[in-house]
Amino acid sequence: MKAFMDKDFLLSTETAKKLFHEYAETTPVLDYHCHINPREIAEDRKFDNITQVWLGGDHYKWRQMRSNGIEEKYITGDATDREKFQKWAETLEKAIGNPLYHWSHLELQRYFGYYGALNGRTAEEVWNLCNEALHQDDMSARNIIRRSGVTLICTTDDPVDSLEWHEVIAKDETFEVQVLPAWRPDKAMNLEKPDYAEYIAALAQVSGTKITSFEDLIAALKVRMEYFAARGCCVSDHGLEYVMYVPASEETVNAIFAKRLNGETITRTEELQFKTAFMLKMGALYHDFNWAMQLHYGVKRDNNQLLYKSIGPDAGVDCINNYAPSSELADFLNALAIEDRLPKTILYSLNPTDNAAIGTILGCFQNSDAIGKIQQGSAWWFNDNKQGMTDQMISLANLGLLGNFLGMLTDSRSFLSYTRHEYFRRILCDLIGGWVENGEYPNDEVALEQLIRGISYGNAVRYFGFDLDPDARRS
Amino acid sequence: MKAFMDKDFLLSTETAKKLFHEYAETTPVLDYHCHINPREIAEDRKFDNITQVWLGGDHYKWRQMRSNGIEEKYITGDATDREKFQKWAETLEKAIGNPLYHWSHLELQRYFGYYGALNGRTAEEVWNLCNEALHQDDMSARNIIRRSGVTLICTTDDPVDSLEWHEVIAKDETFEVQVLPAWRPDKAMNLEKPDYAEYIAALAQVSGTKITSFEDLIAALKVRMEYFAARGCCVSDHGLEYVMYVPASEETVNAIFAKRLNGETITRTEELQFKTAFMLKMGALYHDFNWAMQLHYGVKRDNNQLLYKSIGPDAGVDCINNYAPSSELADFLNALAIEDRLPKTILYSLNPTDNAAIGTILGCFQNSDAIGKIQQGSAWWFNDNKQGMTDQMISLANLGLLGNFLGMLTDSRSFLSYTRHEYFRRILCDLIGGWVENGEYPNDEVALEQLIRGISYGNAVRYFGFDLDPDARRS
Amino acid sequence: MKAFMDKDFLLSTETAKKLFHEYAETTPVLDYHCHINPREIAEDRKFDNITQVWLGGDHYKWRQMRSNGIEEKYITGDATDREKFQKWAETLEKAIGNPLYHWSHLELQRYFGYYGALNGRTAEEVWNLCNEALHQDDMSARNIIRRSGVTLICTTDDPVDSLEWHEVIAKDETFEVQVLPAWRPDKAMNLEKPDYAEYIAALAQVSGTKITSFEDLIAALKVRMEYFAARGCCVSDHGLEYVMYVPASEETVNAIFAKRLNGETITRTEELQFKTAFMLKMGALYHDFNWAMQLHYGVKRDNNQLLYKSIGPDAGVDCINNYAPSSELADFLNALAIEDRLPKTILYSLNPTDNAAIGTILGCFQNSDAIGKIQQGSAWWFNDNKQGMTDQMISLANLGLLGNFLGMLTDSRSFLSYTRHEYFRRILCDLIGGWVENGEYPNDEVALEQLIRGISYGNAVRYFGFDLDPDARRS
Repeated sequence: MKAFMDKDFLLSTETAKKLFHEYAETTPVLDYHCHINPREIAEDRKFDNITQVWLGGDHYKWRQMRSNGIEEKYITGDATDREKFQKWAETLEKAIGNPLYHWSHLELQRYFGYYGALNGRTAEEVWNLCNEALHQDDMSARNIIRRSGVTLICTTDDPVDSLEWHEVIAKDETFEVQVLPAWRPDKAMNLEKPDYAEYIAALAQVSGTKITSFEDLIAALKVRMEYFAARGCCVSDHGLEYVMYVPASEETVNAIFAKRLNGETITRTEELQFKTAFMLKMGALYHDFNWAMQLHYGVKRDNNQLLYKSIGPDAGVDCINNYAPSSELADFLNALAIEDRLPKTILYSLNPTDNAAIGTILGCFQNSDAIGKIQQGSAWWFNDNKQGMTDQMISLANLGLLGNFLGMLTDSRSFLSYTRHEYFRRILCDLIGGWVENGEYPNDEVALEQLIRGISYGNAVRYFGFDLDPDARRS
Repeated sequence: MKAFMDKDFLLSTETAKKLFHEYAETTPVLDYHCHINPREIAEDRKFDNITQVWLGGDHYKWRQMRSNGIEEKYITGDATDREKFQKWAETLEKAIGNPLYHWSHLELQRYFGYYGALNGRTAEEVWNLCNEALHQDDMSARNIIRRSGVTLICTTDDPVDSLEWHEVIAKDETFEVQVLPAWRPDKAMNLEKPDYAEYIAALAQVSGTKITSFEDLIAALKVRMEYFAARGCCVSDHGLEYVMYVPASEETVNAIFAKRLNGETITRTEELQFKTAFMLKMGALYHDFNWAMQLHYGVKRDNNQLLYKSIGPDAGVDCINNYAPSSELADFLNALAIEDRLPKTILYSLNPTDNAAIGTILGCFQNSDAIGKIQQGSAWWFNDNKQGMTDQMISLANLGLLGNFLGMLTDSRSFLSYTRHEYFRRILCDLIGGWVENGEYPNDEVALEQLIRGISYGNAVRYFGFDLDPDARRS
Repeated sequence: MKAFMDKDFLLSTETAKKLFHEYAETTPVLDYHCHINPREIAEDRKFDNITQVWLGGDHYKWRQMRSNGIEEKYITGDATDREKFQKWAETLEKAIGNPLYHWSHLELQRYFGYYGALNGRTAEEVWNLCNEALHQDDMSARNIIRRSGVTLICTTDDPVDSLEWHEVIAKDETFEVQVLPAWRPDKAMNLEKPDYAEYIAALAQVSGTKITSFEDLIAALKVRMEYFAARGCCVSDHGLEYVMYVPASEETVNAIFAKRLNGETITRTEELQFKTAFMLKMGALYHDFNWAMQLHYGVKRDNNQLLYKSIGPDAGVDCINNYAPSSELADFLNALAIEDRLPKTILYSLNPTDNAAIGTILGCFQNSDAIGKIQQGSAWWFNDNKQGMTDQMISLANLGLLGNFLGMLTDSRSFLSYTRHEYFRRILCDLIGGWVENGEYPNDEVALEQLIRGISYGNAVRYFGFDLDPDARRS
C-alpha cells in the first residue's frame, strides 16, 4: 500500500516517477486562464483565515457541503468562519474519489506543511495551523504565486474593464511575474439579458464610439481589443451555451440588434443568429490580432433559481448542457476557415461525452499557421479530476498529437490552486510513464523530456507567443 | 491467476478484501426497488425447477439466447424446461464479460452450492443439482429472502392495487422481513395509451372519487397515496421516456385531459404538457408526504413489434433512448425547488453517457432537507455490470459525495437476485480499496467502515426513513 | 519495463500471451470490409517508395501532419517523397498514444524488419531500408496479402461498377485468395447531390433498365445486385449521416424522386423520407439475397471546404456527427423486422458514445435466422485504437454475446494494414486473458480457443457464409 498522498502520489510506475520528479516538477507554471482578481495581486492581499481562502467564493466546495445536507447558513450564510470550516472538514471526509479531496490536501501539504487528513476530528488543529501560516509574509498573494513557480498569469476581463490593476502590477518592478489581461466579451454577445442596453451604453462610453448598429458594436469592441492588446492581451475567452451556427445576413443581424436596443423582445432564432454573427466577427478579429480564441461551452447556468436569487451567479448551481451539435461547431469553424480568418482556437466542452467529437473536429482545421493550431483544452471544471483528465488526454492522443497539447490551467479564483498544475502533471506523467513501461512508446529520454516539459509549459509559451523561455526550468 | 469466482472474486487488493469480508459481507441487504410479486412472498412460493426460476420471466436471459440464434420455442415457447435449460447453458458459455455470467454463477454458488462453470456439458449435472435443492424448505421464497440477509423489500405497485398481499405479509408474525409497497403511477400519466380511459375509471372507483378534471385526477391519486402511506409506502417510482419540462397552464392541462377522456387524439406537445404537469403535481405531493421520487428514464420500449405482439411487454425488446435533454431535467427540478416542494429525488438514466450530466445536476438542488437529498441511482438495468457500476461510482465520486450514495437495489423479479447486492459490494470494495492502496484516501479504518456499511445499507435506511437500525450487522 | 513493441506487445498477462501466440496469431485473416482497389491486386502492383505506400492517400496521416503545423506542400503537395517522409517521421514522434504510432511500427516490423523507432533522426535509415524492401518481389500487392495470411477480401464497390478487376482476379489461378465485391449504393440514395441525375442515368444504362420511378430505381438496383451476387458478393455497405426513420407513402417517395430527376430542389424532410424508403427497400432485398447489411453512420464529411475544394473527398476533414437518435434506428430495424425481412445487420457508429445504445438495440432484433444476426461492428475509423476497441468489446460483452462477435476488418486503402488485425487480436487477447487471470471466466482452454479463433476469423466465415473453413489455422 502506498502512503497517503506521498511524494509519489498518483505515480504508479518507475518511469512515471522519473518523468514527474526529473522533468515535470522542475518546470515552471504558466496559468493562461484563471479568474484571479488582479487587484488582489496589485495589493498583495493577505487572508485572515483558511475559511476566507477556501470557502469565500469556491462554489465547488459549496456544492459538496449542500450535498452533505448542511444548512446554507454554514455555507454562504452568517455562521462564523470556524463553524463553516468545521462543516467543510466533516463534508470532505465523505468526498472519497473527489478532486476536492486531493486538491485540499495538496494545498495543505504544499502551502501549510500539513500531511495528515482533514476531517471533523482534525479540523481544529488544521484551522490553527493554517491561520498561523496565513499571517506569515510568504502567504501573501504575490508570495504564493512566487512559491508556486508561476511565470505568467492571464486573468479574465470584460471589454469595458479599465485594466487599471494590470497596469499597477506591470509598473511595479518588485514583482517579476507577468499578469496579463484576457478578453471575455460575453456581455456584448448576450443580448437576451435584461441589462444588455446598459452594457452597450457602457461599452460605447469606454470606447468613445457611438453604437447604433452591429458594425458599430464590432468597431467599439475592436477599439477595446487594441486597448487590451497594448496591455499584453493575446487570448480571448467565451462562455457559450453551445457553439452555434445559424448564419444570417448583415441586414438581419443589424435589425435584431436594433430591435433589442429598442427594448423589444427577440426570438430564440434571432438570438442564435445574432450570436453566430457576433462570434464570426470576433473570431475573424482574433485571427487578425493573432489572439487565441477559447470557447467554453456545454453549460446551463443558474439552475436553482432560489439559490441564484439569494446568492447570485456562481452560486454552485450550474450543470452540463448536453445539447451541443458537433455539426454546428464544425460549420462555425469552417465559416472562418473559408475566409482564411480562423484564429488559433481552443475548445472546451463541459460535457465529457463531447471529447471524441471535438478530437475529430480539431483535425479538420489544422494548418501551418501554428503547431497544434486547433486545440482541445484541458479537462474543464467538473471534468478537472483524475478520470476526466485521463480521458481527455487519451482521447486527444488517439485523435491528434498529444505532444502538442497546451496542458493545464487553473480556471480558479484562488491563489492556492496552482497545486492543480501539480495534480495534472502527476496524472500526465502516470499516463505517459505507463505507456512507456508497457512498451507502447520507446524509453527515449530526450523525446520524453520534450513531451513532458512541452505539455507542462513550453507548448503554451510558444502557442500564445508569450515573452518567456519555453524551455525554462524552475529554480 | 486467481481461481474462478472464488471468495475474493473481483477483490484485487488486500484492502479491497478486507473491506468486503470485514464490512460489506456482514451488512444486511435492503432492497428498496424491485419487481418481486408480493403474492409469492405471502404464499411462500416454491419452484419446480431451475428453468422456472431463471427463464420464466427473465428477459435479460431471453435476449442473450436470441443473440445466440436460438429459436423462440426454446426461449419463451413450448419446449420442455430441460430443453430450455440446455439452450441457456450453451448460450452462457459465450457470454464472457457479461453480468449474466457472474450473476448466474453467484446464484449457483450461494443458493445451490455449485462452484463449477455452467455450460452445455455441465448442464445436466447442474439441472439435477438445482432441482433437488429447489425442493428443499430452505429454498422457499421467504427462506431465500432470509438466507440473503434481507431486512426490507419495496415492491412496485400501481395506484389501483389493493395491496392485499402486502397486508397478508404484514399481519403474518412468522415473517420478520418488511415488505412495503412502492408507488408507480405510470398508467395515470400515460394518456397516449389506448386503455387510458379504462384506467382512469378504475382509479376513480378504487379511490371513491369522480374524475372529470386534472384536479380530480390528482385528488384521486392523493387518496391512494394516503392508502399506500398507511401501509408503509415512502418511495415512488416513474418510468419516463425522458424527464421533460414543457410547462402549460392548468387550463391547458385540463383541456388536454378532457379531450383525451372524450376519446380524442392528442398531439405530442399536448402529451408532453400533460406529463409535465402530472409530474410536477406528483413531485410536490411526494415532498408533502416525505416520499422519495425515483425517476427512471432514457428508455424506448417494445421495439420489436413482432415479439411484443406475441409475448407482450417485458419481452426483452427495449433499448436506450438517447434523447434526454439535461436542460429539461434541470428545469423540471427547479420548478419544484422554486416552490420549495422538491422531494428527495433519485435519478436513473438508462443511457450511461448521461452520468456526468446527472452528476452535475444533483449538486444544483441539494439542500439541508436530507443528507444527499438528490441522488443518482445505482447503475440501472443494462448498466448493472462491473463497468457500468464502476463508471457510475467514479462519476458520482468526482461530482458529489460518494459517501452519501444509497447503493444497490435489485430491480428484479427473481428471488435469487440478492446476489447482485454482493456483486455490487465487491465492485464497491474493489474501487475504494484500490484508492486506499494507491494513496488516494487515508487508510482510516473508522472512515472506511462507515463508507462501506453506509453505501451498502445504512445510507438508504436513513434516507428513506425506514424503521430499521442503519448500523445493523448480519448475524 | 517491457521492451518497445516486442513479441508480447499489449499482452499484459500470461494468459493473454498464451491466447495470442497459441490461437490468435496462428489464425488466418478475413478482411470483410476494406477500400483496396482490386485493380492493384489484379495487376499485382508494386510501390516505388514508402511515401507512396504511406502518404499517397492516407488521410489519417495527413491530419496528424497538419496538426503538427506542417505546410500542405509536404502533405499532399509537390514536395519530394523524401521530404514528405521526413515531415511524417518528425510528426510521428509526437503521436504518443496514437494508433498511427503503433500501426506504423507494426508495419515496419512485420513487412520491413525494422524494430527501432521512427523519428526525425532515424528517417533516413528507415527510408532506405523500406525502399529497398519495396523493390523485392515479396512486397508486391499479392505477396503482401499472402504473407499476411489473408484468405478473403471484400472490397467496396459501386452498383455501376463493372467488377472487371474482380473477374480478372477470379480467373487467375495463380492467386489463391478470394477477392469479392461488396455493394455500396450510396450514390443511388444521395439524391441531394448535384450529380444525382447523371448517376441515375449511368445506373439505368448499366442495368439495362429505364428509371423514371422509385420502383424503377429499386428494380435497376436489383438487376445489379444479381450481377454482384453472381460474382460472389454477399455483403453490402452504407455510409449514412445517421440511421433515419421518416416513413412516407410510396406515392410521396415517387413524387420526391420525380421532382429530383426534374432538377428541382427537395426539402430536408423529403430527403429523409426518400432515404428512409430507399434503405427499407435495400434492407428487404438484402434479406431476400441473404446478404449482410453494414450501416456506417455518425459522420459529417468534408468540413473544411478550403481543403475539400483543393483535394476532394477523403481529404482528412471529416468529423463525428453527434446527432443519431437511437429511436429512429430502432424504428427502422423494426419496420424491416415486422415484415420478416430484416437482414443480417452490422451497425457501426463513428460516435463512441453510441456504443451502449447500439448494444441495447442489437438484443431487440436477434432471432434464429443467424447466430448473432444483428452485430455491432468493430470500433470504426477514429475509434480504431486500443481504447476504442477495448471500450467497444467491453460494451458488447456487457450487453450481448462477445463470443459471437465478427471481429476485425481493416477498412483500409493500404496493403500494409493487415497488421491492424494483429493489433486487434492483441487487444482482444489482453482483454479476455485479463478476465481469466482475474477469475472472471474459467481457464477453460477449449472454450477460450473457440472464443479467440471465432472472433478472429471463424465467426465471420460462418456469418457471411464464405466458402472457407471457419476453423482454419495459418500455416
